[in-house]
Amino acid sequence: MAQGRVSVGILGASGYTGGELVRLLAAHPGTEVAFLGARDSVGKTMAESHPHLAGAGGLASAVLEPIEDVAGRAEVVFSALPHGASAALAPGLVERGALVIDLAGDFRLAASAYPEWYGFDHPAPEWLDKAVYGLPELFGEQVAGARLVANPGCYATAAILGLAPLVAAGLVDAGSIRVDGKTGTSGAGRGAMDPTTYSATEDSVRPYRVPRHQHTPEMERGIELATGVPTSVLFVPHLVPAVRGVLTTSYASAAAGATTGSLTECLAGAYSGRPFVRVLAPGAMADTKRVRGTNVVELQAVADPRTGTAVVVAAVDNLVKGAAGQAIQNMNVAPGLDETVALPTLGMYP
Amino acid sequence: MAQGRVSVGILGASGYTGGELVRLLAAHPGTEVAFLGARDSVGKTMAESHPHLAGAGGLASAVLEPIEDVAGRAEVVFSALPHGASAALAPGLVERGALVIDLAGDFRLAASAYPEWYGFDHPAPEWLDKAVYGLPELFGEQVAGARLVANPGCYATAAILGLAPLVAAGLVDAGSIRVDGKTGTSGAGRGAMDPTTYSATEDSVRPYRVPRHQHTPEMERGIELATGVPTSVLFVPHLVPAVRGVLTTSYASAAAGATTGSLTECLAGAYSGRPFVRVLAPGAMADTKRVRGTNVVELQAVADPRTGTAVVVAAVDNLVKGAAGQAIQNMNVAPGLDETVALPTLGMYP
Amino acid sequence: MAQGRVSVGILGASGYTGGELVRLLAAHPGTEVAFLGARDSVGKTMAESHPHLAGAGGLASAVLEPIEDVAGRAEVVFSALPHGASAALAPGLVERGALVIDLAGDFRLAASAYPEWYGFDHPAPEWLDKAVYGLPELFGEQVAGARLVANPGCYATAAILGLAPLVAAGLVDAGSIRVDGKTGTSGAGRGAMDPTTYSATEDSVRPYRVPRHQHTPEMERGIELATGVPTSVLFVPHLVPAVRGVLTTSYASAAAGATTGSLTECLAGAYSGRPFVRVLAPGAMADTKRVRGTNVVELQAVADPRTGTAVVVAAVDNLVKGAAGQAIQNMNVAPGLDETVALPTLGMYP
Amino acid sequence: MAQGRVSVGILGASGYTGGELVRLLAAHPGTEVAFLGARDSVGKTMAESHPHLAGAGGLASAVLEPIEDVAGRAEVVFSALPHGASAALAPGLVERGALVIDLAGDFRLAASAYPEWYGFDHPAPEWLDKAVYGLPELFGEQVAGARLVANPGCYATAAILGLAPLVAAGLVDAGSIRVDGKTGTSGAGRGAMDPTTYSATEDSVRPYRVPRHQHTPEMERGIELATGVPTSVLFVPHLVPAVRGVLTTSYASAAAGATTGSLTECLAGAYSGRPFVRVLAPGAMADTKRVRGTNVVELQAVADPRTGTAVVVAAVDNLVKGAAGQAIQNMNVAPGLDETVALPTLGMYP
Repeated sequence: MAQGRVSVGILGASGYTGGELVRLLAAHPGTEVAFLGARDSVGKTMAESHPHLAGAGGLASAVLEPIEDVAGRAEVVFSALPHGASAALAPGLVERGALVIDLAGDFRLAASAYPEWYGFDHPAPEWLDKAVYGLPELFGEQVAGARLVANPGCYATAAILGLAPLVAAGLVDAGSIRVDGKTGTSGAGRGAMDPTTYSATEDSVRPYRVPRHQHTPEMERGIELATGVPTSVLFVPHLVPAVRGVLTTSYASAAAGATTGSLTECLAGAYSGRPFVRVLAPGAMADTKRVRGTNVVELQAVADPRTGTAVVVAAVDNLVKGAAGQAIQNMNVAPGLDETVALPTLGMYP
Repeated sequence: MAQGRVSVGILGASGYTGGELVRLLAAHPGTEVAFLGARDSVGKTMAESHPHLAGAGGLASAVLEPIEDVAGRAEVVFSALPHGASAALAPGLVERGALVIDLAGDFRLAASAYPEWYGFDHPAPEWLDKAVYGLPELFGEQVAGARLVANPGCYATAAILGLAPLVAAGLVDAGSIRVDGKTGTSGAGRGAMDPTTYSATEDSVRPYRVPRHQHTPEMERGIELATGVPTSVLFVPHLVPAVRGVLTTSYASAAAGATTGSLTECLAGAYSGRPFVRVLAPGAMADTKRVRGTNVVELQAVADPRTGTAVVVAAVDNLVKGAAGQAIQNMNVAPGLDETVALPTLGMYP
Repeated sequence: MAQGRVSVGILGASGYTGGELVRLLAAHPGTEVAFLGARDSVGKTMAESHPHLAGAGGLASAVLEPIEDVAGRAEVVFSALPHGASAALAPGLVERGALVIDLAGDFRLAASAYPEWYGFDHPAPEWLDKAVYGLPELFGEQVAGARLVANPGCYATAAILGLAPLVAAGLVDAGSIRVDGKTGTSGAGRGAMDPTTYSATEDSVRPYRVPRHQHTPEMERGIELATGVPTSVLFVPHLVPAVRGVLTTSYASAAAGATTGSLTECLAGAYSGRPFVRVLAPGAMADTKRVRGTNVVELQAVADPRTGTAVVVAAVDNLVKGAAGQAIQNMNVAPGLDETVALPTLGMYP
Repeated sequence: MAQGRVSVGILGASGYTGGELVRLLAAHPGTEVAFLGARDSVGKTMAESHPHLAGAGGLASAVLEPIEDVAGRAEVVFSALPHGASAALAPGLVERGALVIDLAGDFRLAASAYPEWYGFDHPAPEWLDKAVYGLPELFGEQVAGARLVANPGCYATAAILGLAPLVAAGLVDAGSIRVDGKTGTSGAGRGAMDPTTYSATEDSVRPYRVPRHQHTPEMERGIELATGVPTSVLFVPHLVPAVRGVLTTSYASAAAGATTGSLTECLAGAYSGRPFVRVLAPGAMADTKRVRGTNVVELQAVADPRTGTAVVVAAVDNLVKGAAGQAIQNMNVAPGLDETVALPTLGMYP
């Protein structure tokens, strides 16, 4: 291990999120990747599994190992395994001293929600209260002392960041929030599936998992954790022909007198000085393309006095701010370091 | 003019909608295109203006003429000119005996709405009441006797067809409808513009004209015309990386006891026997790709008892059911003919 | 069976080509689909297997059957099974009186070529000479009397139609032809595969199967069959981010004095009166988008006197002129009917 | 000016290449952007002109100035102006002491070639011999002492890097090279144009400027400069539905006995130790998506003994290795610094 560097392990290194973690960590001066674990592709090098990382030096030739072998080999473990896999693994790793950052949904909800929204009984419910919900812009203090971080879902990151300050300020009614989400195919992961082939996706716009997407209770819980206000959220996600990017358009009844200006000021105030939040001036429109490859969230607020509605639009790169980038941000924050290390703010455009 | 064929004129033949009208009319046995008018490209042939129509026989070599020359040369005039242009032209053509089908927004609203939503004072307000709103599934009887048809907007077609039966049945609350729209670039027309270049559009999802899109009052008026129930609609359109297709996701409070089943049955009953409406079974998801190139609207209804919300998703091809196809459907209905002539129901997929 | 209609069977109805055959045959007045066979999805209706065909009337509710059951039930059998499957099936069907049109590569080559290019020994080599290579523009007379038609590959269709007349006229050197192909994902079929997911395909341009694509010997043989001139072809296919469309750019040494004009005239003369061939005027550029959904091939010829090279560009829709459309064209030609029945020539654009 | 930093000016900062220069320079520790010049958008900030650069700190708020004002304000001037504009400007800037790196074609060819390929008489032909062709992998020594660098074209970069070592080694015949290029829309620049709208580009593959693309003589000259061997190149570029990426597939007669292995070894040897060249192992296929956002070129060589042909495929990001990245690489090399500073080698994928 290099002098003074934090040793890092990744579980699920053969997927898109795992590849993105390696891409970003390759530029991180304070860490050393000590372990790359996978369930598929064990024995392959990272460059064989992810040819676009062929230029990543030693990381390119690092060999994927069975995920079980991580124990004791890394101070920080990122788990990018599918939902359900880290619920069983993470407690043991924390007990052996690791900081675990779980990129799946296994520690984001209350125990009672898992059967309904994830389809399984949580195997370690006593750990759910110990996990910190890793949205550093809202829960940075808790993250700073955490040993187990539940890294938020991509849609939830976008929706919660846009809504929480407005709910807290009483500018919108938390009782009837409707979130319309749009995303590309990378969120579905790397495996080939019928709904996300190029042939099926080009010129196709369609909803999915209506009204049972698992980010629904995460949005409700995240806003309540941040504001103390109970909420009711209906969430309808859509697949659009894109690879990266999540855009959430949230609708809620606005408080009397709310204007586009007052909503925007509220958001700007709440995130003043936060390096990854960009609150757009009134009239500007959020765009997923501008945040692609970055850890930035773009927020846009509009009031429609005619119908008494507030609209909040949020755009993130689902693999960065919605997954790997936010996980690294949490890792940076946990020991109290500069949260921006290795995290891009300039998008590749066009 | 061929024996027994209706003579047809097109204003705005050089645009995408004009090209689509010609493509569909080329397969229509009951019409003859007698006039092709344009503001650009006058003097060019259709095949020069639209090379994909090179196989359209005589229509391919027909020459674009100034739009003013249409008078007296066609029994049916389709106006695919930009908003504002046909308001002045159409009355004179009707007075000379033509059936005018206006594909712009010039006859869709009450006079008082034009300054606010279209930015101009209507030059012929006395004609607004004479125009029939051309959604044949809801206003077929009026269309059958019309001399001036206001062909609906693409978003409005989708949203109204999905919502009107549910409002009429009291299954949803008309007072707080929120419509989230997604569309591709073809709706913006043929001209090159910065927001719809390939470079700017790939991997970009973004709202536009929030909250002032001109289809908003059209949705409110259309639902009220069909149901007698006043409505309040907030509409937020989004551009996604696609060419054809409009998908509207409409949210409204559901009546107590409403289920996905009862909403679906209501829609299926309302459109029973209608050749272009496809009400999806519960669990199936609407998809713009499936209706591409067709005059079909796909409707999907979902109730979310947890939040008391109804969601109605509608998918159309904006250039066919949302423009040229519906215009031809109106032309077919007006004299009481078979409304399906020349209108595809089988999409090109993938 | 409807009076006077030809009974048709489709093997492989659950794939993209099978779906396209049904879409096109639904508009064919002279046929009746009597059998839909599949290896997957047996027992499902066509509309369940292909939801975009829900509007296809009786065809939508027709049930997929095991492919073995076709015998004796159809006068014409289209086989859209994977390579290797119809080699064994087709002879028996022909012997029972059916006209078999094979859309795979099983009857396109000489027996000696199968081990090298398709990886199997041909099980019925005596039938290879009885099969007619179904490129109606070049072999229409043979097709008219055929009982077994080898429907050409998509790339081969494009390249051969562009090159054969120039080789026959001695305008290009057949000894050193290089064909650079570009295609979208639909040619890879309906099954989900890693290389053709949306995530892997967006913004990706890459060659594949270099230099061993199985259309290489088909191009060599097809040109020689048409011209009597032996040829040598190197073919390099590429995947680009598109769904439909094949574009081949063929390079060959040009005869002394050859000009863009003389090459173009040669092609125009060879295909004079052919309804599906569009030879572009000098300066116009072929475009796959213009022929999408049609049975048309666009041909463009350019001479470069500076380097003594001829370039021939050909564009087809791989699922129509490159597969299902050409198969129907062959069916139309075989009994001497109008070859254009049910085959579109107007593309959907944009 | 920051201590020890090189002052840099950019002409053409409002275009895509200008934006990419700023994005990359924002991460360059040895430079300070002292001047941002444009012909459009003068008076706007960079963030107004390029909203995706809103996170670029001081560069985001820097104001675009008239290009004429650069003189004397920067030690290094990048000119990303359209072809023809820098031919007149650059000599004066060099005479005032600046290192000028021209990203247009104004200093890439011999004087006699300009009327034919660029359509203008070169205004400063005496400077053409003083300019160094800025392909650091082949001409690094000359670049190290240059005052005027002609930054290569995107297609030329790809084709020359792939072919030059093979020509030098006598493995391919330089007399009959045919280069088939594929690219996305970003190379056409930021301005909206009919051929590169999303509507016209989706599902469209088409050649352009056949056979007169201006990179043709640049390829011929670049290979000859590097090898001493005169060449003859025919180049046919194609537009495909993508934003970033150039892929060139080059065909040439192979020397007797050449194999995929020997071609690959030749390339690997020629670029041994070069940080931005990735020579693929036999069987691997080049992919533009893997190099997106990076300064890397992927090279793939294949021999086809059957036809005696060598195929060389090269993939670059046209805005990075094909423009802004290579320009910065030249700037790094010119004073003898580490050529890799600020230049990514890890692509964003998917």
